[in-house]
Amino acid sequence: MNLESLPSLAPVAEQCRERIRNEQHTGPTAGLAAGYVQANLMILPKDWADEFLLFSQRNPKPCPILAVTEPGQHLVPSLGSTIDVRTDFPRYRVWRNGELCAEPLNIRDLWRDDLVSFLIGCSFSFEEALLADGIDVRHISAGVNVPMYRSTIQTQATRRLAGPLVVSMRPMRAADAIRAIQITSRFPSVHGAPVHIGDPALIGITDIHTPDYGDAVEIRPDELPVFWACGVTPQAVAAQARPEFCITHAPGHMLITDIPNTRLAAL
Amino acid sequence: MNLESLPSLAPVAEQCRERIRNEQHTGPTAGLAAGYVQANLMILPKDWADEFLLFSQRNPKPCPILAVTEPGQHLVPSLGSTIDVRTDFPRYRVWRNGELCAEPLNIRDLWRDDLVSFLIGCSFSFEEALLADGIDVRHISAGVNVPMYRSTIQTQATRRLAGPLVVSMRPMRAADAIRAIQITSRFPSVHGAPVHIGDPALIGITDIHTPDYGDAVEIRPDELPVFWACGVTPQAVAAQARPEFCITHAPGHMLITDIPNTRLAAL
Repeated sequence: MNLESLPSLAPVAEQCRERIRNEQHTGPTAGLAAGYVQANLMILPKDWADEFLLFSQRNPKPCPILAVTEPGQHLVPSLGSTIDVRTDFPRYRVWRNGELCAEPLNIRDLWRDDLVSFLIGCSFSFEEALLADGIDVRHISAGVNVPMYRSTIQTQATRRLAGPLVVSMRPMRAADAIRAIQITSRFPSVHGAPVHIGDPALIGITDIHTPDYGDAVEIRPDELPVFWACGVTPQAVAAQARPEFCITHAPGHMLITDIPNTRLAAL
Repeated sequence: MNLESLPSLAPVAEQCRERIRNEQHTGPTAGLAAGYVQANLMILPKDWADEFLLFSQRNPKPCPILAVTEPGQHLVPSLGSTIDVRTDFPRYRVWRNGELCAEPLNIRDLWRDDLVSFLIGCSFSFEEALLADGIDVRHISAGVNVPMYRSTIQTQATRRLAGPLVVSMRPMRAADAIRAIQITSRFPSVHGAPVHIGDPALIGITDIHTPDYGDAVEIRPDELPVFWACGVTPQAVAAQARPEFCITHAPGHMLITDIPNTRLAAL
């Protein structure tokens, strides 16, 4: 997506970022600065970054890009005038050759002039729209993380980047599922419409009660599981491709931007 | 809906209507004048018509009104400059006290100054959009009538008009069902988005292979049944309410209007 004009500074979002930047808040960001877009992070050296950009172009549903920086540039003015990707996530994950090797609170000492940052849309934005419509988002009402699964749906590969689509699941009654499809269709930059609904086995999920990431949630007898492309996909694909160096956010520990969620609505 | 400006005369639609008016074509209208809106008919005496208008306001999904005439007026210029409801349907059904008593090719001799005509949207318009998107519409590819069921979803009643929602069913793979929800959401004046997806028992359908109207169609193992509000609902409700006099079109024998289907798209 292209956020053409610099949004005005959002005081609530900036206050949250300042507490995170000062390492006063080091936990997950769910529920912070309600109404503002939160973003996933993928940082790669220039060579891999060029290929990841192509991968995200081919896979917009799991990798909806909100912003890409120039190499070495650690500010992201298009998402907020004060944003610094080195300090504004509560917690990071540092990967070397596909292995997780640290979870620091900032990455000032790891910064390099060849690093490119990808800020990637997050389902928090559309979940807010679902809640506003009165739809029960089960993992939120249950107070747990969303359940995520490696599916047998394949991403569109590039030369070195390939792998299965990771999907998140939210159980809903049929009427709510239909409404959720309408609502999330309006948010293409945060995963958009679902990729599957109904029988999990049709997309290779053999046990819906044992997610590959996150927590299991109850599916009631009158509910259908509804599956969306998930922002964990790029991390899973990068882990499989094993670039020599890579930094992501720690799951749930997002960047709070100055962009109102409503600005992501396509219609 | 409000079709504000008189559309230009559509020669293909007018040619079809002329053959119907002259009783050269007396069969179903599926596939005729592709691209043009077709309409269901409900004609009621003024007293019942006032209540039916209220009923349709409360139940826009099964009763999407394209036009309502003044009492005694048998032309419908907002849908086509030459349209005459007394002659331009290939076949009619005449009901007295809720009983079907004739199926004439025109209703010239039955016309009265107190009759009000309701022209009601028809799923042909959104099916054309589904086919254009490459989605298999099973009853069309099988060459049969769409299967329809009395559900346990209740319409919003008026004083004398009440009854169950009649739904039509189209089986689809999940990805096509999601796409179909997006596409039909754009067509609120022809039933709009589905009302149910998945388990038929949840809306009181005990045997999906035995529809109450129309023909059964195959549901493949990787498909979900998707249910839309159906234009048969007003006929079923009127039959239950037993007005002393009522005229409808014969199922499948629709009015061809001058309105392009694309003009019904809300977005």
